Amino acid sequence: MKRIDLNCDMGESFGVYTLGMDEEVIKLITSANIACGFHAGDPNVMDRTVQIAKKNHVGIGVHMGFPDLLGFGRRNMDVSYEELVNYNIYQIGALEAFCRKHDVKIQHIKPHGNMNNMADTDRVIAEAIVDSTLMVLPGTPIFVKPGSELHKVSEAKGVPVILEIFADRAYNKDGTLVSRKIPGAVIKDPKEAAENVVRMVVEGKAKTIDGQLIDITGDSVCVHGDTQGSLEIIRHLRSELEKAGVKIAPIGQCVEEVR
Amino acid sequence: MKRIDLNCDMGESFGVYTLGMDEEVIKLITSANIACGFHAGDPNVMDRTVQIAKKNHVGIGVHMGFPDLLGFGRRNMDVSYEELVNYNIYQIGALEAFCRKHDVKIQHIKPHGNMNNMADTDRVIAEAIVDSTLMVLPGTPIFVKPGSELHKVSEAKGVPVILEIFADRAYNKDGTLVSRKIPGAVIKDPKEAAENVVRMVVEGKAKTIDGQLIDITGDSVCVHGDTQGSLEIIRHLRSELEKAGVKIAPIGQCVEEVR
Amino acid sequence: MKRIDLNCDMGESFGVYTLGMDEEVIKLITSANIACGFHAGDPNVMDRTVQIAKKNHVGIGVHMGFPDLLGFGRRNMDVSYEELVNYNIYQIGALEAFCRKHDVKIQHIKPHGNMNNMADTDRVIAEAIVDSTLMVLPGTPIFVKPGSELHKVSEAKGVPVILEIFADRAYNKDGTLVSRKIPGAVIKDPKEAAENVVRMVVEGKAKTIDGQLIDITGDSVCVHGDTQGSLEIIRHLRSELEKAGVKIAPIGQCVEEVR
Amino acid sequence: MKRIDLNCDMGESFGVYTLGMDEEVIKLITSANIACGFHAGDPNVMDRTVQIAKKNHVGIGVHMGFPDLLGFGRRNMDVSYEELVNYNIYQIGALEAFCRKHDVKIQHIKPHGNMNNMADTDRVIAEAIVDSTLMVLPGTPIFVKPGSELHKVSEAKGVPVILEIFADRAYNKDGTLVSRKIPGAVIKDPKEAAENVVRMVVEGKAKTIDGQLIDITGDSVCVHGDTQGSLEIIRHLRSELEKAGVKIAPIGQCVEEVR
Repeated sequence: MKRIDLNCDMGESFGVYTLGMDEEVIKLITSANIACGFHAGDPNVMDRTVQIAKKNHVGIGVHMGFPDLLGFGRRNMDVSYEELVNYNIYQIGALEAFCRKHDVKIQHIKPHGNMNNMADTDRVIAEAIVDSTLMVLPGTPIFVKPGSELHKVSEAKGVPVILEIFADRAYNKDGTLVSRKIPGAVIKDPKEAAENVVRMVVEGKAKTIDGQLIDITGDSVCVHGDTQGSLEIIRHLRSELEKAGVKIAPIGQCVEEVR
Repeated sequence: MKRIDLNCDMGESFGVYTLGMDEEVIKLITSANIACGFHAGDPNVMDRTVQIAKKNHVGIGVHMGFPDLLGFGRRNMDVSYEELVNYNIYQIGALEAFCRKHDVKIQHIKPHGNMNNMADTDRVIAEAIVDSTLMVLPGTPIFVKPGSELHKVSEAKGVPVILEIFADRAYNKDGTLVSRKIPGAVIKDPKEAAENVVRMVVEGKAKTIDGQLIDITGDSVCVHGDTQGSLEIIRHLRSELEKAGVKIAPIGQCVEEVR
Repeated sequence: MKRIDLNCDMGESFGVYTLGMDEEVIKLITSANIACGFHAGDPNVMDRTVQIAKKNHVGIGVHMGFPDLLGFGRRNMDVSYEELVNYNIYQIGALEAFCRKHDVKIQHIKPHGNMNNMADTDRVIAEAIVDSTLMVLPGTPIFVKPGSELHKVSEAKGVPVILEIFADRAYNKDGTLVSRKIPGAVIKDPKEAAENVVRMVVEGKAKTIDGQLIDITGDSVCVHGDTQGSLEIIRHLRSELEKAGVKIAPIGQCVEEVR
Repeated sequence: MKRIDLNCDMGESFGVYTLGMDEEVIKLITSANIACGFHAGDPNVMDRTVQIAKKNHVGIGVHMGFPDLLGFGRRNMDVSYEELVNYNIYQIGALEAFCRKHDVKIQHIKPHGNMNNMADTDRVIAEAIVDSTLMVLPGTPIFVKPGSELHKVSEAKGVPVILEIFADRAYNKDGTLVSRKIPGAVIKDPKEAAENVVRMVVEGKAKTIDGQLIDITGDSVCVHGDTQGSLEIIRHLRSELEKAGVKIAPIGQCVEEVR
């Protein structure tokens, strides 16, 4: 039986500011990437988010970001290897303490925003992410885009990877994502997006921007939970996957089987 | 043989800003209270400070502070129990991750600045400190001032305490510290301060502001390491303690014996 | 003809975080209290908010807050007179630069959250607010609660005041507000709240918690714009005031007449 | 008679953290670049720094930086034109309010650290700096490196420029600075550095990395005031300039003559 994980960024509220519909989306996903107070989130939000993830049997991931609340971690940052290792260790430890309080384990690592984007091609950033994981959470899998530097470095260092597939993005022939700058890179129709995911999970085939089918492996689909509309998209995706006989379950319960 | 621990605040630098003479003072003390990025410190500073503490066999403590870098955690902050529990869990976890990286253990908890001062008399603050420790680092001792709310709450909840004694402060008859606002509360002469410490450690007697001697128990002396002058004071204190046959050693190595 | 100003806190978004329905509420009010980046707001938000205030002919006020984004300026802060003077000068200057860019003037000063609450009774806080205004924006009126320390200090120092009246609060016999801790202090029914405002503006009478009528003078009503429901409340209030023949206009256009 | 201005970064302390020897260096320079709370500085520091600049008849400059206290504004930041315009307007306004309090004028604009470095070659950054100045401080000169984008954009938009010369840097034939990555780019000997400055100011000639002499125009020399050693270097430079008959005076008093 085919399986897939649905992951979503969560815990991105801060102080009086609310972002995302966490209480709703947590019921629809299987893995939560929880912000750790650098690009978003604060200690109270982290506590609440770990609680609702546990209650809903959702896998917990460290969603570490650049220290840039004003830019929400969505700006490239000129950090050294040493700095980024330390930023990440700090964030991992902070989230882990809340997990210990609530007696749950960290399931995965997924860097946020431009730390993740930079790790597509920047080897130093990718190494800092992988090494910080190895230093304080050895054995914990990292979410990677296929063919990214983060993917390569993780495999080279023996860190388990979770391959992310993207419902709303077109693929190149080599399995990498088409740059957002190229027309047709982003799929806006939710129905088409759901079809793409089902094809990737059930048949192991992704559609390229040229309309060809290539082989693909995917462990988790990245979904968004900011608006009422995005909740509908997740519900539609879940329903299509279930119709196709795919089991939706957290990575922590199925990663060995999937691998 | 009598024993005593010497503790000092450390790791309070931030970015390009240097505070304290950590590289020098670490050689003279036995326990380091390490800032965790809220009132001071940053991930790079925490990493370096845990390293030098390990290298010098100095016990590592979580020195959590209020989230107020501009005020260095030295302003009262109007936080709820829930908020403070979460602020402290966050900071404990962050420091612990660096300890894991360097394969050392956290020895103790010591709240910083006005979080500590508020815990002298504010039961809610004291409970938040004790409960956050119990939630994520059960069994870890907390540094307390004798007779403070933090002391009472720790004992009521079964958390081990390290009694701090103060070289430069006069005592009331009940063993609490004389308020700084009262003339004579602060002892400025380093020689007199060292004599006080030796008397407290060797004879178990503290001098009150009225010149009487009262019984006292002390596990650790709080010292300062900001200036060349403060290093001299620590050196003098060490030398007087050693002359009196007192062993200077971290809490982690001697707390059971002392208790 | 009777006149009244309607003021509302605005520009409290930060980075990706949106707070308040500024684009809607700006059309319904006459004075905007604009956050300056300490308790809320950021340079981009300030720029946009000054722009929409100008476009809608709404008076612009400095809404300075404590430097506590995490607590949204709603926590008491232990600041000295000098510190608060400097925090306020900084925020006034920052907002004024955006006003200069858009060729508008600052109309008023209104401290935010707990800086305002502390100024009800804390003379040092009140003096810091008044003096910072005098130092860099002399002649600019300050929004005050009747009978507060901020009111008294403003008058003693010759700073013009705008008296705020509150639609949703019960009054004491001396014209001060009943503490929120006392049952009946907060009026929850929007209809009753609108009636209270009309009575205060047209007849110059406020209802006390005992049901008596006392004399009151008011220049501005504080309204809220966070939710769709709060927009409805403002619309109802406007309609009742207009039915009663009251002109709704910014302080800057009517303060001399009102005084 | 030849004239030159000596400029130095100041007001970079923050909270309890002290950086630079401002009280000493202010007596030796003629223009102060004052941090505005983004990369360094805080409202209390800004107030003190404007005061000592006024007292010592030193010209006051806005030293705006990226919002990155942790990185001290020394990391490239991925900001849009609109964002940077707003960051700069905010900082200009904040400093100007302190100038108004102390009844002094802003003399100049000098971007800090990597905002300045990026403006060497990045036209968008350069335009944001120039336009923010034009929007809120029209007529105020900007410190520029010869041949930089900031230089070109300033001239194209009719903003007066102050040409900086560098005591400790080797020049290319076209008058630009040799990259720090190239051996020989940085002159470490203070005597040689002082000779270079005197030659540039008196003869209008700079030495290139190849040992040739090229024509150069310079209005201000950038000096550093972090350590006792750097104070000695400034003193030596002043003495050599005075021996050569050069008058040391702020830009504000001499810019027309120099131009």
